Amino acid sequence: MSTVTAPHVIATYIIETSLPLEHAAEVLAGEQSTGTFVRVERESDDLRARFAAQVESLEEIPLTGASPLPGSVGDPATRRRARLRIRFPLENFGPSLPNLLAAVAGNLFEIKQLSAIKLVDLDLPPAFAERYAGPQFGVAGTRRLMSRPDGAMIGTIVKPSIGLSPADLADLVGDLAAAGVDFIKDDELQGNGPQAPLRERVAAVMPVLERHADRTGVKPMYAFNITDDIDRLEANHDLVLAAGGTCIMVCVNLVGLPGLEYIRRRSQLPIHGHRAMFGSISRSEQLGIGFRAWQKIARLSGADHLHTNGISNKFYETDAQVLDAIAAVREPLLGLESTVPVLSSGQWGGLAHATYAETGTTDLLVLAGGGIHGHPDGARAGVASMREAWASAAAGESVETALERSAALRRATEAFGAARV
Amino acid sequence: MSTVTAPHVIATYIIETSLPLEHAAEVLAGEQSTGTFVRVERESDDLRARFAAQVESLEEIPLTGASPLPGSVGDPATRRRARLRIRFPLENFGPSLPNLLAAVAGNLFEIKQLSAIKLVDLDLPPAFAERYAGPQFGVAGTRRLMSRPDGAMIGTIVKPSIGLSPADLADLVGDLAAAGVDFIKDDELQGNGPQAPLRERVAAVMPVLERHADRTGVKPMYAFNITDDIDRLEANHDLVLAAGGTCIMVCVNLVGLPGLEYIRRRSQLPIHGHRAMFGSISRSEQLGIGFRAWQKIARLSGADHLHTNGISNKFYETDAQVLDAIAAVREPLLGLESTVPVLSSGQWGGLAHATYAETGTTDLLVLAGGGIHGHPDGARAGVASMREAWASAAAGESVETALERSAALRRATEAFGAARV
Repeated sequence: MSTVTAPHVIATYIIETSLPLEHAAEVLAGEQSTGTFVRVERESDDLRARFAAQVESLEEIPLTGASPLPGSVGDPATRRRARLRIRFPLENFGPSLPNLLAAVAGNLFEIKQLSAIKLVDLDLPPAFAERYAGPQFGVAGTRRLMSRPDGAMIGTIVKPSIGLSPADLADLVGDLAAAGVDFIKDDELQGNGPQAPLRERVAAVMPVLERHADRTGVKPMYAFNITDDIDRLEANHDLVLAAGGTCIMVCVNLVGLPGLEYIRRRSQLPIHGHRAMFGSISRSEQLGIGFRAWQKIARLSGADHLHTNGISNKFYETDAQVLDAIAAVREPLLGLESTVPVLSSGQWGGLAHATYAETGTTDLLVLAGGGIHGHPDGARAGVASMREAWASAAAGESVETALERSAALRRATEAFGAARV
Repeated sequence: MSTVTAPHVIATYIIETSLPLEHAAEVLAGEQSTGTFVRVERESDDLRARFAAQVESLEEIPLTGASPLPGSVGDPATRRRARLRIRFPLENFGPSLPNLLAAVAGNLFEIKQLSAIKLVDLDLPPAFAERYAGPQFGVAGTRRLMSRPDGAMIGTIVKPSIGLSPADLADLVGDLAAAGVDFIKDDELQGNGPQAPLRERVAAVMPVLERHADRTGVKPMYAFNITDDIDRLEANHDLVLAAGGTCIMVCVNLVGLPGLEYIRRRSQLPIHGHRAMFGSISRSEQLGIGFRAWQKIARLSGADHLHTNGISNKFYETDAQVLDAIAAVREPLLGLESTVPVLSSGQWGGLAHATYAETGTTDLLVLAGGGIHGHPDGARAGVASMREAWASAAAGESVETALERSAALRRATEAFGAARV
């Protein structure tokens, strides 16, 4: 059938329902394409054949024990859970990401026949990569700009999150640059508020980094948070660019995925994609959008860096979820430039070997707040502990060997506990 | 203390936690402002006093029985639920909606000490209304453009959702205009795909409406779905405007709230705000963002119309939720122009009295798909049944009187069941 071979999108869902699974799958496919159960006038067989979404596969999986979503109908005791793949004709929406979401997400979270509904993956046809440019710098461009040709890229976050005067920020950045970090980022809470406007932060930070570059030949990358109204993004970007900055940070869910795509078209700098507010659509196992689906849209929209969380993090995610997120970001996508996974939250040198063992790469941007700022011997030792641990892991050494060789890593364990094997 | 009287935002949350409630509240306030439990260098007492978020109030409420969120820590048996109000200094983010969300939402959904976390309301200071213009047309502007000075505004949705050729669409719109609707909208699935590009839909629909206006003096409002990449929104709007169209539809969550704000600054037409994908952040009682909070941001961003769902709808929401949403949209907000609540999903004439009894207003846009297209005597009778029912309700008549007087409403009950009292 032509509908099978014509360009299409396959969306993968986890659903739960008290209806027969096949019936629930048809409800979902109908609601998100040609309509409802009631056939209306002008809805011909031809129209259905061409535009209807089709059930591609349906695989029952075990219930998790989580509560059914509010408002779901049917006897909870008869609930079953499935992994469902639906095929949507590209013709219905064209290679437009916002219009794609109307079909593969849209109203379906409101369907009362579903007691769980989560969009977990998307298979997209090449037409999306023809319309959307994707990352501009990726791993190679990021490494070049921060003069870190190999090894894990080690970064940190400005703390306290908010409230530092531009002068204090400049001091802090000077200390961190001297400590040897590759990358520094604004906290996502630091936007363009009156207490430290972006213009003043840029004016305070960039001369410090330029002086450091003059002395050492290396300019650490600083990701200025330019998150703001759409009409302010370009001017914010231009401010960073004009001052010699080498990265902009965008909170993807706060400007919206289309906001990311908007600034990508205008950016001359790598875009550090922060995922603040992602938990609101993803933490529930019963509802929302999973990281594998979301990150594809963020990458098409131009994120050079994308937060994945790290193992042993202080947030809710398990190591398995984090590792799957890192793997997802590293998988090729429609021939786009690569995106750098950003590991953060509770990271320190003692996690390097365990992370490397699972990911097999150093093409990672590893951010440590406390793991650097809170090292017993200061930030320089914090950076050294992380860099030495990652180099050891990448060289195939054991954690024990790393601890023998690196005094900074040994001292880190005194503050942060045993290194993970 | 100056931090109390200085401009601030109060965010209201529902939380669940196995920690002592006061302690969990402090975790949340800390994560979303000056930082974490570990005090870092340069985090002075002054800085904390000025920038820290503060617990405004904390009220324990009953557990609902819903499962704790994945990854939450602590003994589930000790869980408690509370309504928590947190005060954030405006100075932290300024009156910027994207940066506001970093603070009041942001990473907090990921906090593992919380087994439920939902942002349910926001109290915003006047500075936001100085920066954001809000709706441009509201109730009065919408009524003027559709020549419907009083009574409920009756509208419908193009069905089938997708797949109609522009010629078939023109036929359908001609029939609906002749049937007397005030308003017609594209389905949210109908964007700008190759099967019926916006340009072709506008070219097909507007001459039909103009001819109808020439004959009757009334041009029904047609909301063309202009949802697309940000850079295409203005051109899409201009296409509608140039053809004499009187409304654009934007799927707020698909272009992003900042995308809505972007087109508001450029729009000369009322903006019909569709809430597709809202369920992904709101259906769970344990996670996400509630309608009261979300609709304030959508209204500041410029939505003239905003979907609230209707009573007896086919989706998951209860009547109580729907009525609270309608009430929320009708509450004054910082002196902004009004926004019209849009009732849809399963609506028909038999719901008019029950809806009016609860809302006390006809400043509503009531959309019926099946309730109009599916009336036994056709669309004209479908519109008549709704208009007569709403006029009766607003005149203080009983449902019984309405049924006696309106043949169209009586016939509607044969298709849709008994009218609600």
